[in-house]
Amino acid sequence: MRDFSQDHRWLSINTATVRRQAGAEVPLDRIIDQCAERGIRAISPWRDQVAAAGLDKVAAQLRAHGIGLSGYCRGGFYPAPDAAGLKAALEDNRRAIDEAKMLDAPCLVLVVGGLPGALAGNPAYKDIGRARTEVFDGIAASLEYARKVDMPLAIEPLHPMQAADRACINTLEQALDICDALDPQKSGMLGVALDVYHVWWDPKLEQQIARAGKERLLAYHVCDWLTPTRDLLNDRGMMGDGAIELRKIRGWVEAAGYAGYSEVEIFSAQDWWLRGGEETLAACIERHRSVV
Amino acid sequence: MRDFSQDHRWLSINTATVRRQAGAEVPLDRIIDQCAERGIRAISPWRDQVAAAGLDKVAAQLRAHGIGLSGYCRGGFYPAPDAAGLKAALEDNRRAIDEAKMLDAPCLVLVVGGLPGALAGNPAYKDIGRARTEVFDGIAASLEYARKVDMPLAIEPLHPMQAADRACINTLEQALDICDALDPQKSGMLGVALDVYHVWWDPKLEQQIARAGKERLLAYHVCDWLTPTRDLLNDRGMMGDGAIELRKIRGWVEAAGYAGYSEVEIFSAQDWWLRGGEETLAACIERHRSVV
Repeated sequence: MRDFSQDHRWLSINTATVRRQAGAEVPLDRIIDQCAERGIRAISPWRDQVAAAGLDKVAAQLRAHGIGLSGYCRGGFYPAPDAAGLKAALEDNRRAIDEAKMLDAPCLVLVVGGLPGALAGNPAYKDIGRARTEVFDGIAASLEYARKVDMPLAIEPLHPMQAADRACINTLEQALDICDALDPQKSGMLGVALDVYHVWWDPKLEQQIARAGKERLLAYHVCDWLTPTRDLLNDRGMMGDGAIELRKIRGWVEAAGYAGYSEVEIFSAQDWWLRGGEETLAACIERHRSVV
Repeated sequence: MRDFSQDHRWLSINTATVRRQAGAEVPLDRIIDQCAERGIRAISPWRDQVAAAGLDKVAAQLRAHGIGLSGYCRGGFYPAPDAAGLKAALEDNRRAIDEAKMLDAPCLVLVVGGLPGALAGNPAYKDIGRARTEVFDGIAASLEYARKVDMPLAIEPLHPMQAADRACINTLEQALDICDALDPQKSGMLGVALDVYHVWWDPKLEQQIARAGKERLLAYHVCDWLTPTRDLLNDRGMMGDGAIELRKIRGWVEAAGYAGYSEVEIFSAQDWWLRGGEETLAACIERHRSVV
């Protein structure tokens, strides 16, 4: 297992972690500068932030700073109530793949979607089996294009509490079953983004990480599970402040062959997003070295 | 599949559903009277409510009304930071089994516990594997006593969002693995309480329900998953108001041989607990007939 205690060369910052600082939205170019100032070598930006800052500008700024990506957030959201919606989702994922390519990302992270409309509080249908079929077909279609342009897709299993509205792939086992069905040759073009927040509770986690292996483990995200958790989306904790055995899980991931970044992704409406970016980034670096 | 549309003979009310009415706590004897007035044939009461009302009195009142139990809530909470705590948990579960026996319950429902102290916001340890071992050992010990007095134990897998603080058994597969290890003969003394709220998202649900079969399916609980869900514990929906395919899941459960009550268990701090008991019970009856 790699020693993280001496430096933070394997730290990546998911830009959602600092997209709000002291309660205010912060543009991506400012976040990139903040990371560069602290010797952070990688980030994972979100599409809306990139669009707001300008794709070419972001690419140039990253190159100028020598900052790489640990992933690009995000494609997915495949299910739809009708054919037009399904087609629109595929087109949008194609654009996401192109953007990921422009930014030289190692993978596009897929949050696959749940029951269409559920995120707005009004599911168009309740058949989660149908949503899962639409997700499977959507990933298959995206993968075809992704192979052409050489952009790996990383399925992110989301916590079961987000099954209805954000992603109906909810365990690592389920994600790997899809990978094995669509990419049996383990080409490196289809794998998973493993976020401890979503999977830490899974009794089969160690077993399924070993099954995933190096070829499927395309990204690794950390934060912590707070007790109590006050919100289903935006109450993640800083590493070390919650219940997750971070060292143990990273040990399993590295034993399986993963040797990439440890990406910090914290949505925290009531705590970290209210603090200054300096404080949050300092905590990310310190905790990366001490508890991740 | 049984036809529920003509009557509510297979409806049971978990008394947590109406423990608060119009915002105020309601004693168990009043709840039992309300159920009797509506021809409800079964309830599932909670230990604290029974203790407050008096065990003998509750038993007598139930007999007088001809109301049975669909389960008794609840045993479990096995993990502890030390030997004294583990022993105390076993003793408490023994008392719960005795109470269930006094009330002629068909099973004692087990909410097995998570990281000790996590419910109070301060986990004594983070090793969920250790908690799972303590749970396994605890169930084994309780089962020995339960066999002697002939009181079946029903493990309730809880939603993964409650893994840290309430129950580290989080899928039906995991619960059935424990049942198979401790009761390979399928004696009927160890099984599961299946609550749709906790398991509806599981991609292996249909398969594992079939695996469970009649011998393991000791209780069946319904409510609904709201989008959005505003609280991890107390924001359950009335059947039909959320994303769960209730008919489909009951179909699987009955195909596996379950022929018992459909128990309504709704924790709803911001909605149903603020309404009158008459309205809530009327809704339970109507939805039982129309959507369960």
